[in-house]
Amino acid sequence: MTASPFDHAFLSGLLGDEETGACLTADADVAAMVRFERALAEAQGAEGVIPSDAAAAIAAATSSFRPDMALLREGTRRDGVAVPELVRQLRGAVGEPHAKFVHHAATSQDAIDTSLALRLSAMLDIFGARLSRTIDALDALAGRDGSRRVMAHTRMQAALPVDAARKILSWRDPLVRHQVRLVSVRGHVGVLQFGGPVGSLEALGDKAEAVVKRLAAALGLVPPHRPRHSERDGTAELASFLSLVTGSLGKMGQDVALLAQSEVGEIRLASGGGSSAMAHKVNPVAAEVLVALARFNATLLAGMHQSLVHENERSGAAWTLEWMLLPQMAMAAGVAFLTAERLVGEIAFHATA
Amino acid sequence: MTASPFDHAFLSGLLGDEETGACLTADADVAAMVRFERALAEAQGAEGVIPSDAAAAIAAATSSFRPDMALLREGTRRDGVAVPELVRQLRGAVGEPHAKFVHHAATSQDAIDTSLALRLSAMLDIFGARLSRTIDALDALAGRDGSRRVMAHTRMQAALPVDAARKILSWRDPLVRHQVRLVSVRGHVGVLQFGGPVGSLEALGDKAEAVVKRLAAALGLVPPHRPRHSERDGTAELASFLSLVTGSLGKMGQDVALLAQSEVGEIRLASGGGSSAMAHKVNPVAAEVLVALARFNATLLAGMHQSLVHENERSGAAWTLEWMLLPQMAMAAGVAFLTAERLVGEIAFHATA
Amino acid sequence: MTASPFDHAFLSGLLGDEETGACLTADADVAAMVRFERALAEAQGAEGVIPSDAAAAIAAATSSFRPDMALLREGTRRDGVAVPELVRQLRGAVGEPHAKFVHHAATSQDAIDTSLALRLSAMLDIFGARLSRTIDALDALAGRDGSRRVMAHTRMQAALPVDAARKILSWRDPLVRHQVRLVSVRGHVGVLQFGGPVGSLEALGDKAEAVVKRLAAALGLVPPHRPRHSERDGTAELASFLSLVTGSLGKMGQDVALLAQSEVGEIRLASGGGSSAMAHKVNPVAAEVLVALARFNATLLAGMHQSLVHENERSGAAWTLEWMLLPQMAMAAGVAFLTAERLVGEIAFHATA
Amino acid sequence: MTASPFDHAFLSGLLGDEETGACLTADADVAAMVRFERALAEAQGAEGVIPSDAAAAIAAATSSFRPDMALLREGTRRDGVAVPELVRQLRGAVGEPHAKFVHHAATSQDAIDTSLALRLSAMLDIFGARLSRTIDALDALAGRDGSRRVMAHTRMQAALPVDAARKILSWRDPLVRHQVRLVSVRGHVGVLQFGGPVGSLEALGDKAEAVVKRLAAALGLVPPHRPRHSERDGTAELASFLSLVTGSLGKMGQDVALLAQSEVGEIRLASGGGSSAMAHKVNPVAAEVLVALARFNATLLAGMHQSLVHENERSGAAWTLEWMLLPQMAMAAGVAFLTAERLVGEIAFHATA
Repeated sequence: MTASPFDHAFLSGLLGDEETGACLTADADVAAMVRFERALAEAQGAEGVIPSDAAAAIAAATSSFRPDMALLREGTRRDGVAVPELVRQLRGAVGEPHAKFVHHAATSQDAIDTSLALRLSAMLDIFGARLSRTIDALDALAGRDGSRRVMAHTRMQAALPVDAARKILSWRDPLVRHQVRLVSVRGHVGVLQFGGPVGSLEALGDKAEAVVKRLAAALGLVPPHRPRHSERDGTAELASFLSLVTGSLGKMGQDVALLAQSEVGEIRLASGGGSSAMAHKVNPVAAEVLVALARFNATLLAGMHQSLVHENERSGAAWTLEWMLLPQMAMAAGVAFLTAERLVGEIAFHATA
Repeated sequence: MTASPFDHAFLSGLLGDEETGACLTADADVAAMVRFERALAEAQGAEGVIPSDAAAAIAAATSSFRPDMALLREGTRRDGVAVPELVRQLRGAVGEPHAKFVHHAATSQDAIDTSLALRLSAMLDIFGARLSRTIDALDALAGRDGSRRVMAHTRMQAALPVDAARKILSWRDPLVRHQVRLVSVRGHVGVLQFGGPVGSLEALGDKAEAVVKRLAAALGLVPPHRPRHSERDGTAELASFLSLVTGSLGKMGQDVALLAQSEVGEIRLASGGGSSAMAHKVNPVAAEVLVALARFNATLLAGMHQSLVHENERSGAAWTLEWMLLPQMAMAAGVAFLTAERLVGEIAFHATA
Repeated sequence: MTASPFDHAFLSGLLGDEETGACLTADADVAAMVRFERALAEAQGAEGVIPSDAAAAIAAATSSFRPDMALLREGTRRDGVAVPELVRQLRGAVGEPHAKFVHHAATSQDAIDTSLALRLSAMLDIFGARLSRTIDALDALAGRDGSRRVMAHTRMQAALPVDAARKILSWRDPLVRHQVRLVSVRGHVGVLQFGGPVGSLEALGDKAEAVVKRLAAALGLVPPHRPRHSERDGTAELASFLSLVTGSLGKMGQDVALLAQSEVGEIRLASGGGSSAMAHKVNPVAAEVLVALARFNATLLAGMHQSLVHENERSGAAWTLEWMLLPQMAMAAGVAFLTAERLVGEIAFHATA
Repeated sequence: MTASPFDHAFLSGLLGDEETGACLTADADVAAMVRFERALAEAQGAEGVIPSDAAAAIAAATSSFRPDMALLREGTRRDGVAVPELVRQLRGAVGEPHAKFVHHAATSQDAIDTSLALRLSAMLDIFGARLSRTIDALDALAGRDGSRRVMAHTRMQAALPVDAARKILSWRDPLVRHQVRLVSVRGHVGVLQFGGPVGSLEALGDKAEAVVKRLAAALGLVPPHRPRHSERDGTAELASFLSLVTGSLGKMGQDVALLAQSEVGEIRLASGGGSSAMAHKVNPVAAEVLVALARFNATLLAGMHQSLVHENERSGAAWTLEWMLLPQMAMAAGVAFLTAERLVGEIAFHATA
């Protein structure tokens, strides 16, 4: 079943992105949660919070662990999160007498948010590379077509001629600023979440700071000054970044669709979509998709910011809302990069002025 | 791959709805599009627009037609819609000399929008039944617990005692109004889309009206006065309805979560979610999910209304945006119904005032 | 000070609508709340709930009452609503011994929501008239220009020629459907709100129904079966309607802007906006404003639906959010009507195909 | 007339902020646009682009210039922007023979966007100071109440006891991160806009860069590498920042409202709103307002990101949409700061665990 366009049997031809999608699968999530549980045990073993042979047993068990997804699904239905059931399964795999040290001093959100941090960090690395590739492609386009004189349009009317470079650089320059933003956003995304049931790590006493640092280092994440369970500015900021990306690429798509209009002809498409009824048409499908993705992410962004009103120490409602929105915004950004790269390779400016 | 929470390997335990989902699969879409193409051929055959043996051949071929989904995916990537490739496959199945009469005088949007009309109509029938069931469940709850005196709260403060019935009926009464709204919305959703390439049906000459009526009758849809390719008020209104539904159920969820707070205790949950760290907790998971679904649909609604700005005779951008949003809003409403029904069955009011 | 574009010293030239605005002023609100308090006293006097001479004294005092707005402002700061301070002022105007019968058995929300119901009903009457005028104007345009052959455009590409009437009717037909919707929406908007502190009207005992009916009749509103303090589907539905209106007019605006492009020229504007730098331009300002208004209302609509999650018997948060959004959506719809009417009068189709 | 809650005769008691509002008035806008025109003339005079006596005459005239606001309103109605009429008035004030050098080589958007950059920079300075004050107030609260043991709540259920400091710091820490974000955002907001009619500054030839640098320096703004007329990431990012701020403060408001519930009593309010019907209540009005402001800005944020799809060299539609949204988001953030400061001063934690 596929309500999502990104995973849809045929719409995914238009809206699919396997590389980004691989960061967002249930399998990737479970693997990263297991990785968290293992690193947690190892860090707590090294600091003497749990027995070192328990840590070793947990590490050993996690390396061959395979989850029962049907039971995870049933557990999620009951508990609202998969972690209690996942921990139960992990404890079963570890066996006695060490089972009880799995997930020690942790809470479900620690595993879930840290898993997300790991996977979003990997995704932002992908996006960083794609930003560079898109900028390079636009630079190449400017190098080839930039000196062609075309008409500038303001308020939907022909204004005065400009070099095509002026248009191309107005698509490129925001992407360069997004490169800077990505670094900043990543700093708030790639953060360890570890706070225990109510974010105080009281169970760890004076070992808390040492475990946090060791655990963060093992996972390649930033150790936060304090747990951030209910502080969602990092994810909301990431959502804003994703929407800035799709918005900038959507502006390019809108421009291409306008400039490629039959009556305007400033841009020609090497290829385009066909029509079931009108054989003569070359539809600017990729350009339109970029507009749709921009409006999609702009829309969903509102919900991610609604989630900032995260009540008390942990809100099931606000947190679930994030799960429903953020992966899709990430997919939309990923698809936008792929679509933009494809589109830039297909267009040629044609001097009109 | 599963960016969508509704189709997710374990989140679907919380956010799945197979019955609604069955209206929204790619398979259901293809089947409904094929049904449109067959009914179109039969209507045009009956009116003498195409040869009657062509109509018969098309009808015969569609009954055993199995699409090549990989090619549909590739075609969607190229054309932005699956229909040109689907028509190509259908024509292959029909064979010469009748192949060219498949999709005669139609455009991609006719098949896609009519498929959606068919499936959304079926879905609204399901939702109508669920509305009734939820109202019945609330009536039963009011019958059992309605006379218990509980505290009313205004502006997050205890106010004065009321009967529990006053609370239950404030959840129920909007659903009764939604029953009326459903009828009205369905009238704008279950509408045939058939306009040909530019919505004028000029290719049919004076047979246009007769074909439209016959085709609509065959499909159980309303024949529109004129094609509505670029008039998206019907889908935007449906989206509003879906968000009204999730909003009303979300209000109930929010109330239950508040009344079931440990310190308030006006509502007790027969069962609830467990915690990975705190065994004593009974989390109001279903109530929280209802809030999340309400905020999700309220968020996506904005995008559906952005799609009203549908440029010219057909907008690839605005239309694609609908595909990305409407199925998810439908799923959210479906899940909200199931979750609400489950929740109402689990709560008991406890006199506190 | 003027953060609002609708009331702004010079933007209101573009985005002002005095007739709609008159329904939404603080003065109109206070006048309607006073009208509620008077009608309430008279209804309760007639039913023997309060002494008839108290009712007469209140009616007399309200007819000459002038509020102290500075104190209302201060009271709103303190209480979150103006009503406690307004009632205090009204009681001062009534004087002893009848003062205490002002606002008897009512709560702030009764006065505020009923005031809104009265004013929105008046506004919807205005909008009904404007819908008719816009439809008439489009019919006249179709009568004059409808037979001119112009190019249809699908997916931003020239497709096939159509009569201009096909385009004009795609702008008109949704407005006809909106006329039907207006009737339905008005039925949920023009509803008396009267429930007392917690929506149970317990203070009135067996007189409650009679007072409600008498009060509703006096105000020309529908008497609800039960008070609806926390049931916000009526206002959310109104918001959806306002966004459907601006969306449909925004689609017309987008089309006009596209068809009036210098390179397309299917539509010519009798007048347009000038540029500070390019004297040759005729900017389709009204058309662009329609698009902006559509996107504005689509955006704000999400917030109105967030307000459906109205916690308990009365939510200060969700209700305040409505006050911040609904008046602006109403203004945007009002401005869109005026702008559309102006635009339709300025355009002429020019045969291009 | 006052559709805006921020400027409303009595709602402004709750939702007013004169200091922020002063950055957003029509008068402040006109003053800043005139300041741009003067600085432009002086920069062009210094670089020999216009005669130095023309520059001096323009500078002299602007210092005593008083706009005719009624004509600006009428001009905005006609042109979609106030600048053509403002330039006409300025030229009248300068008189011959220098009049024509007013606004030389500039376009309306240069004046409007630069005016906004100047005023938003001033506003962000205010917000920076308020961020610091709010952090200080929370630190003081933590100092006074931080060691009191209260109950942590997860998923709307009592979980385990924590120090009140844990709650207070979860409100404070995001504000510290917002201080860092403010610096970054301000760098993209405080940027000169100067590109001439189509963003190419071709009229200035090789003097363009020198004029840009001189003009930016005179206005205290950053000189951009290239004009950014159609690149709206700076304003969209500012909108995201404003929503992060209101979201974080809204989370605090939601927590306070929950903790101050009659049945919970972890927080006591020194004062609160009164009810027109229930004298015993102390309503957490300020806390609820913070929630409303958070949801308001989260909602409007979507529209600001829709504006990223800014077609061609200048979009009247997307740009007008910004004017309708951004000032209100700024007001909401300003009001949230004031409300938060007031609220923090009114609450006391009460040990419950």
